[in-house]
Amino acid sequence: MNSSKSLYHNSLTLLTDLYQLTMAYGYWKSGMAGKEAVFNMFFRRNPFQGGYTIACGLAQVIEYLQDLRFAEDDLAYLATLRGNDGQLLFEPAFLEYLQELRFTCDIDAIPEGTVVFPQEPMLRIKGPILQCQLLETPILNMINFQSLIATKAARIGQVVKDEPILEFGLRRAQGIDGGVTASRAAYIGGCAATSNVLAGKLYGIPVKGTHAHSWIMSFDTEEDAFETYAEVMPNNCVFLVDTYDTLEGVKKAIEVGKKLRAKGYKMAGIRLDSGDLAYLSIESRKLLDAAGFTDASILASNDLDEHIIFSLKNQGATINVWGVGTKLVTAYDQPALGGVYKLAAIRNTSGGWDYKLKLSEQAIKISTPGIQQVRRYFNDKEFLADMIYDTESFLPQQNSTIVDPMDYTKRRKLTNTETFEDLLIPVFRQGQQVYTVPPIEDTRLRVKHQLGMFHEGIKRFSNPHIYPVGLEKGLYDFKTDLILQLRNLKSETEEV
Amino acid sequence: MNSSKSLYHNSLTLLTDLYQLTMAYGYWKSGMAGKEAVFNMFFRRNPFQGGYTIACGLAQVIEYLQDLRFAEDDLAYLATLRGNDGQLLFEPAFLEYLQELRFTCDIDAIPEGTVVFPQEPMLRIKGPILQCQLLETPILNMINFQSLIATKAARIGQVVKDEPILEFGLRRAQGIDGGVTASRAAYIGGCAATSNVLAGKLYGIPVKGTHAHSWIMSFDTEEDAFETYAEVMPNNCVFLVDTYDTLEGVKKAIEVGKKLRAKGYKMAGIRLDSGDLAYLSIESRKLLDAAGFTDASILASNDLDEHIIFSLKNQGATINVWGVGTKLVTAYDQPALGGVYKLAAIRNTSGGWDYKLKLSEQAIKISTPGIQQVRRYFNDKEFLADMIYDTESFLPQQNSTIVDPMDYTKRRKLTNTETFEDLLIPVFRQGQQVYTVPPIEDTRLRVKHQLGMFHEGIKRFSNPHIYPVGLEKGLYDFKTDLILQLRNLKSETEEV
Repeated sequence: MNSSKSLYHNSLTLLTDLYQLTMAYGYWKSGMAGKEAVFNMFFRRNPFQGGYTIACGLAQVIEYLQDLRFAEDDLAYLATLRGNDGQLLFEPAFLEYLQELRFTCDIDAIPEGTVVFPQEPMLRIKGPILQCQLLETPILNMINFQSLIATKAARIGQVVKDEPILEFGLRRAQGIDGGVTASRAAYIGGCAATSNVLAGKLYGIPVKGTHAHSWIMSFDTEEDAFETYAEVMPNNCVFLVDTYDTLEGVKKAIEVGKKLRAKGYKMAGIRLDSGDLAYLSIESRKLLDAAGFTDASILASNDLDEHIIFSLKNQGATINVWGVGTKLVTAYDQPALGGVYKLAAIRNTSGGWDYKLKLSEQAIKISTPGIQQVRRYFNDKEFLADMIYDTESFLPQQNSTIVDPMDYTKRRKLTNTETFEDLLIPVFRQGQQVYTVPPIEDTRLRVKHQLGMFHEGIKRFSNPHIYPVGLEKGLYDFKTDLILQLRNLKSETEEV
Repeated sequence: MNSSKSLYHNSLTLLTDLYQLTMAYGYWKSGMAGKEAVFNMFFRRNPFQGGYTIACGLAQVIEYLQDLRFAEDDLAYLATLRGNDGQLLFEPAFLEYLQELRFTCDIDAIPEGTVVFPQEPMLRIKGPILQCQLLETPILNMINFQSLIATKAARIGQVVKDEPILEFGLRRAQGIDGGVTASRAAYIGGCAATSNVLAGKLYGIPVKGTHAHSWIMSFDTEEDAFETYAEVMPNNCVFLVDTYDTLEGVKKAIEVGKKLRAKGYKMAGIRLDSGDLAYLSIESRKLLDAAGFTDASILASNDLDEHIIFSLKNQGATINVWGVGTKLVTAYDQPALGGVYKLAAIRNTSGGWDYKLKLSEQAIKISTPGIQQVRRYFNDKEFLADMIYDTESFLPQQNSTIVDPMDYTKRRKLTNTETFEDLLIPVFRQGQQVYTVPPIEDTRLRVKHQLGMFHEGIKRFSNPHIYPVGLEKGLYDFKTDLILQLRNLKSETEEV
């Protein structure tokens, strides 16, 4: 119940890139399928040029993994695929192997609603390389998108403070669950409600809505439209006043509001959906107050985002409920979080780990090796710094130093006498779920609490303060050596 | 089979905004539920500052409507909703009404793959206002997104011409079907294949993929990785060469390519995923050609879109297969098409139509009344102009004039001796489907053919030529009168 899975038919197992399957075939065929590997999912830059990101999407990943298996029709489809020479891409024995395949990995992840930063592993998977590989695409799909939207919602929440945000984005969302999971992530990020009824049903999110312009237009006059609406739904009256002339619309809403009041009901408010929202809200407030509707809300919508809302507030707009749609659910100014999923270690034949990284000419694109964990240090009032460390070989020491992976002169000493918490927690062990997804309300509160523990500077929209995140110095040095070693190897190859 | 519906469980009926249901309740309660109405879906601006849009998403709308009904658990959920006063939002008799509700509307729509323009109704629905209203949100959700992505793909196609585009976007897409339906729309718009296996299975789209950096990193050396891959999948070899040093990687790929050749197989190509793609492709081409691999492809990827591809081609890049992901499937530079769905007419008590429009201070936001159709005029070589006309009262005449709805001095005479085609065709009649969705390959060809019939100027990326689209003059004049009448009515009200 209340699960996104119920939206889908059982087999989403093929929700992956073909190269995951061709690599899986390669691992299987070359006897490497069971080789133990560790992959980390992380991103390289906070979205929206901001200073933080909200982790979200893990619940959907968990549901996805709960009954992952290749269905008959999945295998029948794979059996039809052919290579360049017209011959089958996969041999039948491989498809039989897939048929029997069951998820047996360990997953550790940072819980939804946690504030996270670039380079930090949000999810770590350990298990047979073939399985890890197949899961790359769905894990990235789910966590990238929902984290993006939760972050956008949190940013909008920073501007509106305690005023409610209503998420209205379904009609412009990117596909069905581009809407449905956006509604979930937006609620976790701080929205108060959604217009999306299916999201309300699936996730237990409050739903809100009254009427559209078409309601008004379907009557001969605006008065008739308001009157009829008030008669049939007196406990849900927010009148949309801008179909013809906004301030005239407000006056008509007030007349109907008086009749509601006389009957013992309350006009909840009015809605503005076009025009100069600052001016119209100020003038509407005057009209409402003069008529004694001091507690009637003014809800506004029309391509709003955190920047426009900030500007409206600066102009003295008296809007106190915010309808946000397209710009939120598509994360309009940056519609993708660039999360990646990188091989970090592989078990060698002598039973130890070979640590792995991906080289790049750009430092930001070089991945970090190791079986990573994130330790967050804090005091009573705020979070102080995060350390990315390796759980096998480079454990935090007393007086550990963290080094910024992008700038080795940026360091910070941490005593480990400070309070700390390790952020990644066990979610699956050998394929069995060992974590219970918290109620969505708790996840939503976690965002609020977490954001409250960070310095205001990191929440600034322009040039935010960079929260200190670094590699534990032993891991940093090891990574540096490995980069040099790979680059040296390269030179040796050149000399051959 | 091959339907997106199979991705979902049966009830998506609540995939709508709550206000559609509160309005439905209002219509039902006030005896207006059966009142016949006409709504048009259209958009106001081409996306990406371009000159055209590709219609897409109708197939999903059709599937959605095929078995639309409120399931028991939908109704049980609606029965829990409460208004401001804590009382039920919907009375039980309304939920019983919804339980019995069946789709009985007429729908006419422009087929998928057709080039369309602002203000043109892409879909027209006629039927009981309650039903039309409920369908607004899902129709907009599906058509807005898929049209956006098909258009983006077509734009990329303009730059690459006959070179294949592979769509790789699933991992950064906005949710599961933000990926799956994007793959469909991208294929219709002109992509040659997708990496998305589920989309391949559902829609019969070709799927492509070989290996990732993690494959290379899971071996001790790049040579081993290529060798092993070539052994296990000799008929699907595109070697990813940039894990350590790109041009060294190309040399290793060539060595393995020679072994493949010796065994009677063919190295299909190499893939570049980072670095200076222009330089690296040119140098890679030289190496490949010198080794006799003149027909090996160079596939490149890394945040590509039509502008970056255009620039790479200008720099002489020798890439001939294009991997496009995030920028395509999220329509990164404009992640939403602003399609709207507006009431255009409502049946009056005397059996005629009252034509309706939504006023706005911005001319572009004033909707057009009427039961609209789009007539496209053409000669042997090209499309000439589109006329939006009213099928009831303002039919095209011999020597009709069309008037640009945004500029009444822009007019064009059309003789009706020219060839023409009416673009909206019947899709549902009284709730019964009367249209067969064509095979996806036909829709894809339709895009190609349609684009070929337009002047190059409208396909230009900067300041495209504006294709002539106008209202039939009778309809234009009627709309103008109605606007003035509504604004006059407003003045009278002010005088009261």
